[in-house]
Amino acid sequence: MASRSIRLAVIPGDGIGPEVVAEGLKVLDAVSGDLTFEQTSYDLGAARWHRTGETLPDSVLGELREQEVILLGAVGDPSVPSGTLERGLLLRTRFELDHYVNLRPVKLFPGVSTPLAGVTPDDIDMVVVREGTEGPYTGVGGVLRKGTPHEVATQESVNTAFGVERVIRYAFEVAASRPRKKLTLVHKDNVLTFAGDLYQRTLKRVAGEYPQVTTDYCHVDAATMFFVSQPRRYDVIVTDNLFGDIITDIGAAIAGGIGLAASGNVNPDRTAPSMFEPVHGSAPDIAGQGKADPTATILSVAMLLDHVGEGAAARRVEQAVSDDLAERAALGARSTSQIGDAIAKRVSG
Amino acid sequence: MASRSIRLAVIPGDGIGPEVVAEGLKVLDAVSGDLTFEQTSYDLGAARWHRTGETLPDSVLGELREQEVILLGAVGDPSVPSGTLERGLLLRTRFELDHYVNLRPVKLFPGVSTPLAGVTPDDIDMVVVREGTEGPYTGVGGVLRKGTPHEVATQESVNTAFGVERVIRYAFEVAASRPRKKLTLVHKDNVLTFAGDLYQRTLKRVAGEYPQVTTDYCHVDAATMFFVSQPRRYDVIVTDNLFGDIITDIGAAIAGGIGLAASGNVNPDRTAPSMFEPVHGSAPDIAGQGKADPTATILSVAMLLDHVGEGAAARRVEQAVSDDLAERAALGARSTSQIGDAIAKRVSG
Ligand SMILES: CC(C)[C@H](C(=O)O)[C@@H](O)C(=O)O
Ligand SMILES: CC(C)[C@H](C(=O)O)[C@@H](O)C(=O)O
Repeated sequence: MASRSIRLAVIPGDGIGPEVVAEGLKVLDAVSGDLTFEQTSYDLGAARWHRTGETLPDSVLGELREQEVILLGAVGDPSVPSGTLERGLLLRTRFELDHYVNLRPVKLFPGVSTPLAGVTPDDIDMVVVREGTEGPYTGVGGVLRKGTPHEVATQESVNTAFGVERVIRYAFEVAASRPRKKLTLVHKDNVLTFAGDLYQRTLKRVAGEYPQVTTDYCHVDAATMFFVSQPRRYDVIVTDNLFGDIITDIGAAIAGGIGLAASGNVNPDRTAPSMFEPVHGSAPDIAGQGKADPTATILSVAMLLDHVGEGAAARRVEQAVSDDLAERAALGARSTSQIGDAIAKRVSG
Repeated sequence: MASRSIRLAVIPGDGIGPEVVAEGLKVLDAVSGDLTFEQTSYDLGAARWHRTGETLPDSVLGELREQEVILLGAVGDPSVPSGTLERGLLLRTRFELDHYVNLRPVKLFPGVSTPLAGVTPDDIDMVVVREGTEGPYTGVGGVLRKGTPHEVATQESVNTAFGVERVIRYAFEVAASRPRKKLTLVHKDNVLTFAGDLYQRTLKRVAGEYPQVTTDYCHVDAATMFFVSQPRRYDVIVTDNLFGDIITDIGAAIAGGIGLAASGNVNPDRTAPSMFEPVHGSAPDIAGQGKADPTATILSVAMLLDHVGEGAAARRVEQAVSDDLAERAALGARSTSQIGDAIAKRVSG
């Protein structure tokens, strides 16, 4: 293989972010071979906000645009007002870089314990395609007469044919590539009738181009119930930004916990870099103690490798994680870096 | 006890609705003693819609207003366009009769199996106080350029100080009456900043009046995860209309399934009758076969009894259900009416 160099932005962030990112990069390095990642690290998150009041300066956003791909650890700290970094940094990145697909596999690896009784890895193997750039996440809305007994606070879910169609098309592609070829739309079309109807009509129209894919619909409330009682129902799910946020956390819970859940904020048109990150937060309570599980970040690195066209390397990382997870119960407690070392050794071995 | 008569509206509805309502009324009758329920049955639901195109005519709504309390089975059928009966009948009733508290206990009864491994009845005993008259359920929103590539579909969540404060006050009262005295606000205040902030500020302000109640906050995505991994975290939850819809379905899933989940659409100010109903739908696939579990309806009858001030009768119904559930595994399959008979016998015995 000819050597190839890829520009990688790294945002370690806050709390356990830097710790898990270090292990992700360790594994990336071990699997890379002739592939080189030219890394630039960006100091963003709570610390920077405290120091400068900035969340994501335009100049940094401009630099990020020049990168090919981004790895993010976690941002956030209780000392920062809720929403500041989420909206100012995480969501701003997703919206500005047009990450319209938020890709979240929900997969129970062999050997991993799930809180569900009697469930095996065969029962939990799905991919959630969450819309990432519109819906209730737009920030549209406002407040009138704040702090008075007559206050009115609104939030608007904005959904466009453009935005809905592109994420649904992506989901059909994912479904078509999988053995079960089943795509379920999760929404609440009996209450959110305008948005739900747009999703339903678009699904039906695009379905005509994918006769090999079976489609299905499930209300979000019922879906959360089925995640717990019959997770096997699902193969690929397409859903809006807020419903996707909620169901992927239940997905993480049933598939072994938030320490294992990986995600990609993907711009499939490649007009800007995509960003890969564990679903978990910065967990300040365990930061700096070597207790964080770096597995979600390492699985996010596998998704990153897939995105840059290095499928073989991605499979090796996934296999190494899978092998490590299968032996974990027998191994007892290991530190963040011990887990990273073990997985890195497997991919290079 | 002096004899007393209460005007009860009964809406059996569609599918399994009439079957489960029959058992609910059987138990109500068995427990009533000197108490009389003057029943009026209302033909509403899919059948009426097909016959007349009506969901809830103004004249019927007017009659319902004159009742003291309402028992509803379930409405809906796949032959009716999604949203028609939900918005035209169920939600219209909740909004018109100002059911601002949607009360949903999540309780694992002894002997009931849960999909969660290693969880006991001590771990799952909470009450969700879901706002019922605003938030994303208002129907506010619209569609522009429908069916074109430039379509925009919006849904607006409308939240008022008036609406948020009254449901939060109610939740504090519920929390104050329970042994743990813990109230958790579930929202997504880091993204839905305007609405979330109104909920947060109101919670803090009202908390001053309830020093005995501990308050807490949890993002909705994390809450769904904790329902599965650590349900014990929760005692009383207050949340908006949509988040409440979602988390109470997971609640039903962890507490033995939708066949057991009861609910009350409550107007605490008693300016209009409250409505009690099982959380489940009309399940047309099993209708008319005597397969439906009437337990959720019977537990809704217990909530109804509480609401009309008959706490002792309510406790007897709950105890009878609890005793029946404890023996259920040993009893094998029983029909809808056999379960109703058994519980009715216990309350009258
Ligand atoms: C931190 C928050 C803004 C974010 C979201 O809601 O999308 C997180 O929960 C996630 O799922 O990535
Ligand atoms: C049928 C539907 C409108 C309703 C809701 O969303 O409130 C139902 O899911 C419920 O929870 O009672």
